[in-house]
Amino acid sequence: MRVEQVRYQSDDGLDLVGVLADGSGGSRAPAILVAHEAPGLTEHIKNRTIAFAEQGYVAFALDLFGAHDLGLEEGRAQATAIVQTPGLLYRRARAGLDVLLRLENVDREAVAAVGFCLGGATALELARHNAPIKAAIGFHPGLKRPAGSSDGPITARILMMIGDLDPIVPQEDRIAFAQSMNAAGADWELHVFGGVGHSYTNPDVDRFNFNGFRYNKDADRRSWAMALALLRDELKA
Amino acid sequence: MRVEQVRYQSDDGLDLVGVLADGSGGSRAPAILVAHEAPGLTEHIKNRTIAFAEQGYVAFALDLFGAHDLGLEEGRAQATAIVQTPGLLYRRARAGLDVLLRLENVDREAVAAVGFCLGGATALELARHNAPIKAAIGFHPGLKRPAGSSDGPITARILMMIGDLDPIVPQEDRIAFAQSMNAAGADWELHVFGGVGHSYTNPDVDRFNFNGFRYNKDADRRSWAMALALLRDELKA
Repeated sequence: MRVEQVRYQSDDGLDLVGVLADGSGGSRAPAILVAHEAPGLTEHIKNRTIAFAEQGYVAFALDLFGAHDLGLEEGRAQATAIVQTPGLLYRRARAGLDVLLRLENVDREAVAAVGFCLGGATALELARHNAPIKAAIGFHPGLKRPAGSSDGPITARILMMIGDLDPIVPQEDRIAFAQSMNAAGADWELHVFGGVGHSYTNPDVDRFNFNGFRYNKDADRRSWAMALALLRDELKA
Repeated sequence: MRVEQVRYQSDDGLDLVGVLADGSGGSRAPAILVAHEAPGLTEHIKNRTIAFAEQGYVAFALDLFGAHDLGLEEGRAQATAIVQTPGLLYRRARAGLDVLLRLENVDREAVAAVGFCLGGATALELARHNAPIKAAIGFHPGLKRPAGSSDGPITARILMMIGDLDPIVPQEDRIAFAQSMNAAGADWELHVFGGVGHSYTNPDVDRFNFNGFRYNKDADRRSWAMALALLRDELKA
């Protein structure tokens, strides 16, 4: 499989570096945009991008920040800035999506956005702005809406998978999410893993010892299976 | 495949008639107890029981009431009586489970309870009383606790799949469910289908034209796939 860095620019002129893993064997194939957590494009995200490619997809990990593998403080500062600047999360996400859509062997009618933490919110923003994606999937996504978020309508299928103990997604955010999805006419699902915290897919999170952040092997495995099942349904039908 | 009626009694002396569909081909096999909706054991429940058997399981649809195919009013009256009499839902459920456990070719270490509407609450009660089941799965289950419900601990894996618009399962019931599952130390998941009402698996419900009750083809198909995936994981591992 080909795995390579791709240099590109956002429309606000920032130099970005994504990672492309093409599992298509060169033939026309469905594609997955992978959006990263607050610390940027890390090994964890690169590994998942390759894992999607191993399922036969063209997978591209976008870069929201123009910098990878940030420290915690810098990651948080970048994440805060991008969600507080109206429309910026969508524009940076769209720049990444456009990299995928320009690839010759990508089936443009079969593209999904998948994200982790901040990346889940990123995938949702693409859906809310009616970008050409068939599905938006979030692993432990933040569900607060960034500044400049659009109200839809949403045609992409939505699946958000959260840990019940995730301090990033309090009950009121779950209810507001449902209301906004209903208002946008979305085909949406919310899956809650009991006893599970934030960042459950990321084995590296435990070393930070944050309250409510914890890797969970079962939730990791189950959420991955649910995502692959949905992607098969929507992209390979 | 063998499909037959099975006559048995509950420990309160009621004559009951369940439906057994044995998809094992006679060999030792995992088993599924199927618990019905408020109208009792209907064609819908019988069809699902056969569908489980077609996956290789020994499937048994229990009878909570001693009567099948009730009218709406009578079904509601029976359901209300069974959840308001302390411990009765569990005892009737256990009588059905014991039919399965007595079958020679059933692998007693690989039994799950699955239910629809009232049947979802029935499967949950088996888990709460620590009956020998590996999983409890609910399709549009009621989540209110019946009289005499036990506090666990719960060792069975729990998956409840609800429609977000289901009037039977208001937000406070979802929160109370999560709290009780956490208190019992359960491995639990709650899946919410957006824009979906009660009884989403049952094509027959639409003719009643109840507010918030509606068949939903997508939720039906997706919840079925999730249930089969969980059952494979827990019973065929």
